Amino acid sequence: MSLAVDQWVEQIRAGDVRALSRAITAIENGEPEAEVILQQIFPHTGRAYRIGVTGAPGTGKSSLVDRLAAHYRRQGQPVGILAVDPTSPFTGGAILGDRIRMQGHASDPGTFIRSMATRGFLGGLARATTDAALVLDAAGKQVILIETVGVGQDEVEIARLADCTLVVLVPGLGDDIQNMKAGLMEIGDIFVLNKSDREGADRLEQQLRAMLELAPTRNSWRPAVVRTVATEDRGIAELAEAIARYRQHVEQTGRSRAMAIEHWKQRLLDLLQSRLLDRLVRNHLSAQTLTSLAEQVAERKKDPYTAVEEILAQAGLR
Amino acid sequence: MSLAVDQWVEQIRAGDVRALSRAITAIENGEPEAEVILQQIFPHTGRAYRIGVTGAPGTGKSSLVDRLAAHYRRQGQPVGILAVDPTSPFTGGAILGDRIRMQGHASDPGTFIRSMATRGFLGGLARATTDAALVLDAAGKQVILIETVGVGQDEVEIARLADCTLVVLVPGLGDDIQNMKAGLMEIGDIFVLNKSDREGADRLEQQLRAMLELAPTRNSWRPAVVRTVATEDRGIAELAEAIARYRQHVEQTGRSRAMAIEHWKQRLLDLLQSRLLDRLVRNHLSAQTLTSLAEQVAERKKDPYTAVEEILAQAGLR
Repeated sequence: MSLAVDQWVEQIRAGDVRALSRAITAIENGEPEAEVILQQIFPHTGRAYRIGVTGAPGTGKSSLVDRLAAHYRRQGQPVGILAVDPTSPFTGGAILGDRIRMQGHASDPGTFIRSMATRGFLGGLARATTDAALVLDAAGKQVILIETVGVGQDEVEIARLADCTLVVLVPGLGDDIQNMKAGLMEIGDIFVLNKSDREGADRLEQQLRAMLELAPTRNSWRPAVVRTVATEDRGIAELAEAIARYRQHVEQTGRSRAMAIEHWKQRLLDLLQSRLLDRLVRNHLSAQTLTSLAEQVAERKKDPYTAVEEILAQAGLR
Repeated sequence: MSLAVDQWVEQIRAGDVRALSRAITAIENGEPEAEVILQQIFPHTGRAYRIGVTGAPGTGKSSLVDRLAAHYRRQGQPVGILAVDPTSPFTGGAILGDRIRMQGHASDPGTFIRSMATRGFLGGLARATTDAALVLDAAGKQVILIETVGVGQDEVEIARLADCTLVVLVPGLGDDIQNMKAGLMEIGDIFVLNKSDREGADRLEQQLRAMLELAPTRNSWRPAVVRTVATEDRGIAELAEAIARYRQHVEQTGRSRAMAIEHWKQRLLDLLQSRLLDRLVRNHLSAQTLTSLAEQVAERKKDPYTAVEEILAQAGLR
């Protein structure tokens, strides 16, 4: 395996599309090789700039990401796109979507697009996306665009992972700012008003700016607001400029090192947590014991806290 | 403390609004009392029926939940509502929203409404919501409506927690079924076409039914489709009927016990995981060590996997 892995790592570093795809699949499925790969590529990471792009369905995130990718490609920067999607075993929607989108970049080996899905374990998607970004980073992608849908905890997690987070809004989606879920307001370093040729764009921008005035600044940065019409390629250069300004700001204020350390603290705790559980399950907790305890809890014969203490005591971990 | 907790538990079981609120706040903040409370109320839980309600922003989930709550109240069933919301430190939107919504139920002590928020730890929202539902269950609420926004992993988690999951769609939100995130399709036991007096309702229903035809059934149940206009109270009784049919179906096929055991297996592993990490951090991992390792990882002097193995080795857990 070691020789095969060495070769695989080499292909990843060379940006080989099949090697990248296989590595990300291994990460999604939690295959043991994934960790060996990540360990080996790790020293070659840390150069990519990760841009998170999030917003409600229908805001045109995918078009925006595609246009932004094309912009960076014109500047000669290799680009990776990770589209984070809930698992879809029966529609295969993610894979189909990838194929359609890939066609737009088909002739360009400098762009790699991939949808991310997981088998639904808690926190799994954020973790897998972080690791996939490391793979693309090692492959020499200078910009990694991470597209997420929805307004859940995923977005907060992925904002934590990205170096810069774009929140995409559109006029007239029924959600004026008052309705907009507050979580989104707090993760945006840059707000993109897409489809800004639609009615209501001025009002939305005013509301947004008024709200941002009230918000405390993060890293002494007042979030930028940029108008785009992604389908017509309008505002994309301005958006890239705003991203560059934010990046420069964070680097100049010395915040980027502190952010990286904070990020890795969280990652280490996260890794530790799953390691500890893996070991406990492997060495001290049989499937029968777990099922039997779950049955007792389901029947209210035992509370879950007592059940967990029993498992820990049996493992000598009290 | 013990006497105070005993009293608190008694007040919870009596449905005292302030006692319920304080308990849920303690859960959200991870206060030590929360666990004592949960342990004590646990034998008195297991009777409530938990209905998850999810869908994109602008689909009218809140109105639907309010009308459904009113429907169950008319049947004399005590109702709890948990509105799951991303944290909003600066807008206070959740709390304001609660106050406005509470007014509609102000004269009715049989309805309890609460927004859920967490301090942003991974998986924290799903866990806190599960525990809050236990508190409402112990308080004698027979129906618990759990409202979530977005289409992220949260929803999958909360679908796992609920006994029945409603997915809310509306015509003309720019998302026809093709655009709809596939994750939503798979968690719905019942699909609600809200605002179904709008143009495009027929087409949406056709698309949806066609898609559901292709999907594999879960628990040998073909998801129901119900049309509503929540703001005019139309279709609410039909929706409640579909929920009752699903409930009966699951109970008759003996699936409810298997689902409960599966749910508790996951919860036990989840609890175990955080217990293990807590203990490790408390006994074997100083803040300095963690920071220093995170610095080395951020500087690429060490990979995270090696760092984690070092921590485990130092703790004697290799």
